[in-house]
Amino acid sequence: MVEKLALVGIGKIARDQHLPAIAANPDWELAATVSRNASVEGIENFTTIEAMLAARPDISTVSLAIPPQPRFAYAQAALAAGKNVMLEKPPGQSLAEVHALEELAREKGVSIYATWHSREADCVPDSKAWLADKTIKRLAITWKEDVRRWHPGQDWVFEPGGLGVFDPGINALSIMTEILPWPVHVASAVLEFPENRDTPIAADIVFTNPDGAEMTATFDWRQEGPQTWDIDIETDGGRLKLSSGGATLEIDGQTVKKGSDHEYANLYKRMASLIQSGKSDVDLSPMVHVSDAFTLGKRKTVDAFHF
Amino acid sequence: MVEKLALVGIGKIARDQHLPAIAANPDWELAATVSRNASVEGIENFTTIEAMLAARPDISTVSLAIPPQPRFAYAQAALAAGKNVMLEKPPGQSLAEVHALEELAREKGVSIYATWHSREADCVPDSKAWLADKTIKRLAITWKEDVRRWHPGQDWVFEPGGLGVFDPGINALSIMTEILPWPVHVASAVLEFPENRDTPIAADIVFTNPDGAEMTATFDWRQEGPQTWDIDIETDGGRLKLSSGGATLEIDGQTVKKGSDHEYANLYKRMASLIQSGKSDVDLSPMVHVSDAFTLGKRKTVDAFHF
Repeated sequence: MVEKLALVGIGKIARDQHLPAIAANPDWELAATVSRNASVEGIENFTTIEAMLAARPDISTVSLAIPPQPRFAYAQAALAAGKNVMLEKPPGQSLAEVHALEELAREKGVSIYATWHSREADCVPDSKAWLADKTIKRLAITWKEDVRRWHPGQDWVFEPGGLGVFDPGINALSIMTEILPWPVHVASAVLEFPENRDTPIAADIVFTNPDGAEMTATFDWRQEGPQTWDIDIETDGGRLKLSSGGATLEIDGQTVKKGSDHEYANLYKRMASLIQSGKSDVDLSPMVHVSDAFTLGKRKTVDAFHF
Repeated sequence: MVEKLALVGIGKIARDQHLPAIAANPDWELAATVSRNASVEGIENFTTIEAMLAARPDISTVSLAIPPQPRFAYAQAALAAGKNVMLEKPPGQSLAEVHALEELAREKGVSIYATWHSREADCVPDSKAWLADKTIKRLAITWKEDVRRWHPGQDWVFEPGGLGVFDPGINALSIMTEILPWPVHVASAVLEFPENRDTPIAADIVFTNPDGAEMTATFDWRQEGPQTWDIDIETDGGRLKLSSGGATLEIDGQTVKKGSDHEYANLYKRMASLIQSGKSDVDLSPMVHVSDAFTLGKRKTVDAFHF
């Protein structure tokens, strides 16, 4: 059965990723968009979600590609109307609001999917399988990108609830929580807040884990030039390097796989299968680590940041 | 059966609350203490938990009355040795570490209890029952106390992981999450950080809830003179005021109950019953609200604080 979908939020991520993934998947029909000031040619556009929900009872599913701050209100409206809901990462601006959405979806008997697109990167399953029988000695995440390139002029990323550098950083944490054989927790963190912003532009985190491995993550949003999205892991059975955000896998310095980009294609495939089986998928572990880093991190004030 | 208990951390809260509650309960025998520099007369004292665990296999239960920062390591050691564990609030310095402890307790087949002493205040069950058939219009938490009086010289409360003013504030949130008929989430927050400290000394929080009630919390640790631990709730069926941290209940301006203090007595009673029934009790909802406030709160720098 083809599911009719409304895509809410027609910004950069919608055009770069959501629209091509939906168009390529025969399980989905893009039936409407919701956006205050953008639209997709040939598709009915609504400026409010209420208008869309009232006008289009034929739509089964709402995908939210808007910033995290307003996402709860949209998701709540869609779930209350009996729609299945797909959430861009991070799934909300607070943990409690996502718990509330999960509960509402259960009551309404619909599917909710808190997506983590980086977990769908090509070499993530290979890494998980390779690590399963190894003892990890050291893990280092280096996630350094240029916020001006990836979020041009998007002030919401620095507003409260926008997570700052954890917006990309949470992608690394979504991979880490997927591939590690045991749970970890934040032991300490240092967060660098620009003096004119409410969220950090850089962060250094140390994790604790049951195996005693040394584990760190460094996030920085001020990196110009080449961009770095690497996870390096040293084990008793060799060295694994997952780079390009999970798309390239090296073992002991040799590239063993260079995948292509199927992240959003996989998310929409999985959403269709969750609906078919009447299930939901809400794993908050990447966001718990972010919350923990905010709760126990030391704060450092750094230079003002302007787009 | 009498359970033999080791109390870890012989500081102010241990002497004020834990020791009298244990002494008054025939289900418990205080068998040992663990403290680097304090002891209880007539009881064997150890300076490390490892020494106690090695020397006293007869002890079934470990109660941790130490600051949250080192608590994970102690709890992990006790659980790994097959002991039941009771945690002072907050149960840890991160959410993920408490999830890990819960998992370890499950593997080991022992009980873990994340206590919230304020939930045991005398008028909390009455408030919950009274609210059950009302519609809440407004809720205001006012929690203002003098950190110098309650935590004299205890720098750990201002260190990362010590939660700052959320250390008392989480008591209010533990009551709120117990008495409200529906879940809420933090919509916005402003946190005041002293310029020389890593955690806030004051906080203002706004909550969102499914009923559309106006809900706020104000925490302040700079209050000299009379101390305020009040929850005011306006409903369609009258006004409830829970004061003195849950010990006094007023309805429409009339005092209907002035309870006595059984908080820690109740905690030790409940711990004994959890062990007997082979259960655990770990409700993280008060701490989720604190984490959410840290994650999406605006930060304001205020005057330095010195004890």
